[in-house]
Amino acid sequence: MPLLMDLDNTDLSAMVDHGGLDIMRLNKHRHSSSSSSTPEKGKTSFNRLKVGLTEDYPKKNAEILSAQYGTNLLLFGAALILAVSSGSQVVREEHLLSFITTIMIVQLLWMLWYSVRRDRRKRRLSEKDAHGATRWLRGGITVLALLSLIMDAFLIGRYVGYKACASAAQAVYPVVHTVHTISQVYFLWFHIKDVVKTFETIERFGVIHAVFTNLLLWATGIMSESEHFMNAYRERHGTLNHTGVEHILECNCNTSACSMFANSLYYLHPFNIEFHILVSAMLFVMWKNIGRTIEPRHNKKRSVTNNAGLVLGPILGLVALTGTITVLVVYTVKLREAAVSQGGSENTMFYCHGIVMLACMCTAGTLGLVLYRMDNRPLDASKIPSRKLDTELLFGASMGSWLMSWCSMVAVVARGAPGYSWTGFLYSLLLILEKYIQNLFIIESLYRKHEVEPLSAPEVFAVPTPTHDLPCNGIVNRAYENQDGACENGRVQGCPPEHPAFPLSVPVTLSRKRQILKNIAIFLFLCNISLWLLPAFGCRPQYDNGSEQETFGSAIWTMVLNFAMPLNLFYRMHSVASLFEVFQKV
Amino acid sequence: MPLLMDLDNTDLSAMVDHGGLDIMRLNKHRHSSSSSSTPEKGKTSFNRLKVGLTEDYPKKNAEILSAQYGTNLLLFGAALILAVSSGSQVVREEHLLSFITTIMIVQLLWMLWYSVRRDRRKRRLSEKDAHGATRWLRGGITVLALLSLIMDAFLIGRYVGYKACASAAQAVYPVVHTVHTISQVYFLWFHIKDVVKTFETIERFGVIHAVFTNLLLWATGIMSESEHFMNAYRERHGTLNHTGVEHILECNCNTSACSMFANSLYYLHPFNIEFHILVSAMLFVMWKNIGRTIEPRHNKKRSVTNNAGLVLGPILGLVALTGTITVLVVYTVKLREAAVSQGGSENTMFYCHGIVMLACMCTAGTLGLVLYRMDNRPLDASKIPSRKLDTELLFGASMGSWLMSWCSMVAVVARGAPGYSWTGFLYSLLLILEKYIQNLFIIESLYRKHEVEPLSAPEVFAVPTPTHDLPCNGIVNRAYENQDGACENGRVQGCPPEHPAFPLSVPVTLSRKRQILKNIAIFLFLCNISLWLLPAFGCRPQYDNGSEQETFGSAIWTMVLNFAMPLNLFYRMHSVASLFEVFQKV
Repeated sequence: MPLLMDLDNTDLSAMVDHGGLDIMRLNKHRHSSSSSSTPEKGKTSFNRLKVGLTEDYPKKNAEILSAQYGTNLLLFGAALILAVSSGSQVVREEHLLSFITTIMIVQLLWMLWYSVRRDRRKRRLSEKDAHGATRWLRGGITVLALLSLIMDAFLIGRYVGYKACASAAQAVYPVVHTVHTISQVYFLWFHIKDVVKTFETIERFGVIHAVFTNLLLWATGIMSESEHFMNAYRERHGTLNHTGVEHILECNCNTSACSMFANSLYYLHPFNIEFHILVSAMLFVMWKNIGRTIEPRHNKKRSVTNNAGLVLGPILGLVALTGTITVLVVYTVKLREAAVSQGGSENTMFYCHGIVMLACMCTAGTLGLVLYRMDNRPLDASKIPSRKLDTELLFGASMGSWLMSWCSMVAVVARGAPGYSWTGFLYSLLLILEKYIQNLFIIESLYRKHEVEPLSAPEVFAVPTPTHDLPCNGIVNRAYENQDGACENGRVQGCPPEHPAFPLSVPVTLSRKRQILKNIAIFLFLCNISLWLLPAFGCRPQYDNGSEQETFGSAIWTMVLNFAMPLNLFYRMHSVASLFEVFQKV
Repeated sequence: MPLLMDLDNTDLSAMVDHGGLDIMRLNKHRHSSSSSSTPEKGKTSFNRLKVGLTEDYPKKNAEILSAQYGTNLLLFGAALILAVSSGSQVVREEHLLSFITTIMIVQLLWMLWYSVRRDRRKRRLSEKDAHGATRWLRGGITVLALLSLIMDAFLIGRYVGYKACASAAQAVYPVVHTVHTISQVYFLWFHIKDVVKTFETIERFGVIHAVFTNLLLWATGIMSESEHFMNAYRERHGTLNHTGVEHILECNCNTSACSMFANSLYYLHPFNIEFHILVSAMLFVMWKNIGRTIEPRHNKKRSVTNNAGLVLGPILGLVALTGTITVLVVYTVKLREAAVSQGGSENTMFYCHGIVMLACMCTAGTLGLVLYRMDNRPLDASKIPSRKLDTELLFGASMGSWLMSWCSMVAVVARGAPGYSWTGFLYSLLLILEKYIQNLFIIESLYRKHEVEPLSAPEVFAVPTPTHDLPCNGIVNRAYENQDGACENGRVQGCPPEHPAFPLSVPVTLSRKRQILKNIAIFLFLCNISLWLLPAFGCRPQYDNGSEQETFGSAIWTMVLNFAMPLNLFYRMHSVASLFEVFQKV
């Protein structure tokens, strides 16, 4: 074996001198020819190894290292979730809860360590990612956190009620979850925009741990939610068998508020689920930002925009919202009476309402895209992790709903069922189209370089003016958000190549085009809230559709729905947030 | 409604003049105040709209537009696959085959159009992506294509045998698939490295259509493969029910070679599946390259490297391969005798063999990573889509196997089964570790800037030499692969900042470090082939494991395996290709 024998002869020993591995010194002693290894020298090389293993560690590798750790954390959790949801009582819910409690505590310890370390060297200027989380997003998440806290209180209440037959894990979990939620909101407000530059590999592990802890909490939430829903469904159809979370309801409650707690939990679940997925998305952006060099961006000072002309969008949107709430109430009442049936009037109502709303949304989105095509300008190509993630999440979350829609359409065509089914077919088709168009609209809006103040006099395009003559309050590049400081270079960069010159006049109100875009954004915003409300509060006629169940079999169709429904809910929530950003941006 | 009334007053009409939408002219006629719209002017604005919709279309949006189309194509196919595999005879196999045949024909037409158009303006220099597909990869895919063609011949043979009860789609499909496979191999050799610059939006649709057609063919292949496997499994356990592909075997065969065809198909399936996933990955890289600007890179002229010292890696690898083939033969023989049982000697053999091999692989990977840490150099940060995709595919494909392993470990711990189960536990743990380490090793190898000729005299580090005194055959930046032309600037760029000077001497043989790395790469290469062989040819004891089935229930565990097995097969195939590249690179 000539290979291993010569191993330490030439360049390896050089590498030991040059910051290599200490183990190799053993071999060096045998063969040592040139370099004399004194204890000091060994200590130096050991220190160099330490440096090599922490700070010099290549960024790409550190990313993969931590991403793989996080993925395995999630997959282990997924294995536990699968075992619990299979209903075989080998792995029980308390095992899953214990695991989640443990990783939540680990996250809490890391957040504590991080905050203390960060606060200590506050004097040094720390970089912030201006694109990270907007104030609105953080505010929204805080509201979701409050609702999650109420859920925790109810969980504790339920535990007290069923103390006799509940395990200790069911008491510890909501307590730790409460602390965890409050700490995360604190972290969100004060540290989420941090751009970590030191101890990178170690902090990367902390952040990715937090990301996947939240993802796991999200997955657990989805599991209990769909389990709850399936049980309610089976109860209506008289085929209930008690498993998992429902299990503890079997024993006697010793307080009067038990049923109140159990029922309210059902309505609070969606908010908790959304809280965790949004937090994990924001932490993921923080993770992507580690070690990144941020160009100097100042805090956004948004000029107060004149929202005159914002009439049609809000009105139509509120009409859609009102209609949706009516449908929801009627459906829920029928559901309580256990009178929902395939092809019933409440189903026809649901589908017709959906078709009208989706058709309007398609039209609005198309109009927005046409407006963009009429004024082609280059997209902003700068790399912003949060925006890239937004795009990918929108696109990825669409898939669930698309798969569900395609399955419905295949079922209708395959069975050729008359009448009512074709309403479902049209509804599915519009659902696909609507997501297709809306994604295009949102993504283009996010990537477009929008002007701060629009053009009003069209003739100016024909009269080129030298760029350096423009006044400072003309076009300002939005990447430099501090308008005072960046005006000198912002003005030049703000001019796309095909528009060599911009007008001198400063318009007083919004231009018509921007008015229309703002109306579209607000209309789509309200419609997406509507489309989130319906499934979030139990209006899911897809579960009762006969033709899909006959075509795919009950097992596969339920699997498709359990995959698609949470993704769809997340899609709506996420597009609401994105459309709000679009509304502010255009 | 003040909004819509004022719509065409100010800037909208300007936009019509400036290349806007023709529809708007209708409004303009009513209100027109300033600009007189003659027919010529209208024609110009229509042409401008056409330009606006094709060439000026923002790249980001064109990407999303085509990606969404492709995704929906796949999801529709997935809906059909789900309907077919559910076994309810509403959607039958011929429907799925007809759909796939149609989209294959569309792809064929597009490839024809593309090739003709491309050949016509061959005179103009067209850009090529040097990183696209290496000769080795294309050669490998050609071999897989040949095996796919044999499979098609067998499918036609089987159709002839069962003509009486087979549908026309089952005859048309293999014929079209044959033409499709041959055309794709042609396309692969002559066009896959093209960087498309013209007609971008339209060509983007063509390429993405090709990507998702291949993905769908891959998914169909996996469906029939796992269906076939599950049927063989049920047959052994006496619970067979005929569905799908197996259905036609029920009628009488009128040629003698029928069973030969049916059995051989089983062994040819894995190659066809790999063919389609690899082609779709390569087409995806082509899609990502559309509209990209490639820096001038010349064709790789690889110096013939002296492979002396390449002994231990190949020997150990061949030992692993031989052992694997032995295990495979023993297992398959036992399987034929229907004697495979949970905890049998062949299972113990499988797990022990796996544990030893995986432990060796972990050690080899760790050694490689330690060698890299001993010589920290910055990673190559240039953006190469094919390399990024390689990384993501490795990482994504690992997930299937990781989930399976975690489920196994949860099952063993939950049931606390003695003896044999802990072998499975150790095997799963090592499987996770091995993929973790191997991914890190491959990704770092791909991203590292490797020197062409290594250093041999360690003392040189201490004697800085001015860079401009170095001879031209010293260190050459690998990005500029034409060594003659790029030597002047390559030399300077090739020097990482922490090594200000490099030796004057040109080493004759490989350095020890590179020898070790090459040995590691070749060892891992052979081991991955081994780990691919076992499940590809039916050695899947995981399906027979009792403890997992008891913990997760038969349905969930089979679902996990049907998800994880194809991903695992793909992971092994892909890491074999990547390790080959690593072997050439270090």
